[in-house]
Amino acid sequence: MTWSLTEDEVRSIAIGAGVLGTGGGGDPYLSQLQLIELLRQGKTVKVIPAHQLPEDAVGCGVSGMGAPTIGIEKLPVGDEMWQAAKALQDHLHVKFSFVVIGEIGGGNALEGLIAGAYSGLPVVDADPMGRAFPELQMDTFMIHGVSPSPFGLYDGHGNAAVLHVQDARTAERYGRALTIAMGGSSSLALPVVTGRQVKAYAIHGTLSLSLRIGQAIRDAVASKRDVLEAVSRVLPLKHLFFGKVVDIERKTTGGFARGRMVLEGLGAFSGSEFHVDIQNEFLIGWLDGRPVATVPDLISVLDADSGLPVGTESLKYGLRLNVIGIPASRKLKTARALEVVGPRAFGYDVDFQPLLGDLPEAEWAV
Amino acid sequence: MTWSLTEDEVRSIAIGAGVLGTGGGGDPYLSQLQLIELLRQGKTVKVIPAHQLPEDAVGCGVSGMGAPTIGIEKLPVGDEMWQAAKALQDHLHVKFSFVVIGEIGGGNALEGLIAGAYSGLPVVDADPMGRAFPELQMDTFMIHGVSPSPFGLYDGHGNAAVLHVQDARTAERYGRALTIAMGGSSSLALPVVTGRQVKAYAIHGTLSLSLRIGQAIRDAVASKRDVLEAVSRVLPLKHLFFGKVVDIERKTTGGFARGRMVLEGLGAFSGSEFHVDIQNEFLIGWLDGRPVATVPDLISVLDADSGLPVGTESLKYGLRLNVIGIPASRKLKTARALEVVGPRAFGYDVDFQPLLGDLPEAEWAV
Repeated sequence: MTWSLTEDEVRSIAIGAGVLGTGGGGDPYLSQLQLIELLRQGKTVKVIPAHQLPEDAVGCGVSGMGAPTIGIEKLPVGDEMWQAAKALQDHLHVKFSFVVIGEIGGGNALEGLIAGAYSGLPVVDADPMGRAFPELQMDTFMIHGVSPSPFGLYDGHGNAAVLHVQDARTAERYGRALTIAMGGSSSLALPVVTGRQVKAYAIHGTLSLSLRIGQAIRDAVASKRDVLEAVSRVLPLKHLFFGKVVDIERKTTGGFARGRMVLEGLGAFSGSEFHVDIQNEFLIGWLDGRPVATVPDLISVLDADSGLPVGTESLKYGLRLNVIGIPASRKLKTARALEVVGPRAFGYDVDFQPLLGDLPEAEWAV
Repeated sequence: MTWSLTEDEVRSIAIGAGVLGTGGGGDPYLSQLQLIELLRQGKTVKVIPAHQLPEDAVGCGVSGMGAPTIGIEKLPVGDEMWQAAKALQDHLHVKFSFVVIGEIGGGNALEGLIAGAYSGLPVVDADPMGRAFPELQMDTFMIHGVSPSPFGLYDGHGNAAVLHVQDARTAERYGRALTIAMGGSSSLALPVVTGRQVKAYAIHGTLSLSLRIGQAIRDAVASKRDVLEAVSRVLPLKHLFFGKVVDIERKTTGGFARGRMVLEGLGAFSGSEFHVDIQNEFLIGWLDGRPVATVPDLISVLDADSGLPVGTESLKYGLRLNVIGIPASRKLKTARALEVVGPRAFGYDVDFQPLLGDLPEAEWAV
């Protein structure tokens, strides 16, 4: 039913999750090192396909909350995701039987796997975003009315909170305030979900997908083949731009990394300019002032030299980047979902302009 | 063992608690109206002397958290204190058997009594401050090492949090952040205490004391006798100043009302100036630039016309005020306590200069 992750798979997932992070979700690098160390110590991470979860099994989502920029200075401790889930489990007097990655994008994928390593619980091959999003109410569980209450927060230093809230926006507001007080990042256990809810609402196979993306990139880099072409065999992909970072504004405000990156075109894109608006994640990509990729579709950047994805916290002047657009999961493109994750939910007076296709939901065949 | 409060006693307690509030603790007026309404509806408030608590009985402290200025716009709902305590009680899977007023000063005295009315639990005739203080770690329970963990917070709108923390300063920091997000004020259930701890650490008889102070003021006003003289029969009191408010700075920042009030002398104090530094409460009183009353001693102001205490949120230009100093409980004047509640704990480069005497701890004889 379940499969156990290898060290090599962890390395691939870290890269693939970086692509799905659309600039956010936190740098997977440190979490990857921690997870590999845990595997070498004999811990295991079991992965379970969503469709194999018992209907009435109870588990919870885990992810980091806060600005990815914080992660550069406030390093992960290791067991913080599981501590957040444990605070919630103890409060409810239940035993969780699985863990769901709260967002597959960026370091959060690895953090969910680390929670699996510490708890011994299987991690579901699914998540409720199929990418990373900055705010807590922006996931398919919340969009479908799964209760965010109660939820757990942990600061990495022995202090935990369990909150009972009326709705997801209140969870976001109070969770964000606590996260800021906790130093700008925290570990979040939310929501409590049943197997039935995961099957119905989560985006399936996203852990498998990040593994495939990572393997494609690693293979292409090793054999000096074209990275974009390799990735495009795994999922629908639009090459939006190739250029050099000429400006990057980034400030940590209200618990988010907000900003804007400007690229000057190179090669086929010479003479054009591309800029991307950022709230933890890349939200809207503008080619010569015209929006060409819009949230919830994914915008990711790959370093033209290494072929690897770059998070917003690592962007700097002079980097040469390929900007790619990836269509979001169809579960994020319903009218109901777009109210929560479309451009207008972020304050942009722009309609969602879907890229062709959908994020694939195929689970890894083992 | 216990006695039930009358409407008339509630009116006196509201005034006496205003005096002990040293400008803070929130305006008792609205809470008094609510409590009287509850009594008229048939609810009762039982008061139990601290020495009659069973040693192993378990209860919790309740009080408001936030800037008193907020209370002018965010009005109390009624059951919020009990909801905070209930969140904590449910989390712990225990039944509390008493409630302790978290701070006797200002509206918090009434709020504790209202929690008693809603829960049916007796309210102890004691509190851990014998006044009001701005921060959560500033009470005799925390000073004596009673654990602040876990504690409950409630926003008045159906959202509650339970936090597990390593120490009282973390409780203050995280509690304050959540309180600000909750609109600037919240209801706090902290700490969980046993009868033994209340007997050993709380300041006894402070509810009785506020009742006596209020009765003395009401009697003096009704019979047109001198209010200060009447109050001085109940507790040691120093008349620090009589003057007119000529300046009041007050801003709500970091979850506190901070500021400074300047008085110009009248009558015997003509030609002198008095100013008071404020952080929710009056902290240091300066006569012509010299500190003459210092925290933890109480500084309170009485309106010269009505004889009634005035909270920092109601200070305004032109008010004619008597400023009085009242010596703090001896339990706040130990070396250990002064580290937490002395002038230096608030950032003043001033030594504590104790007023003569101690706050009395005599319980009401019924």
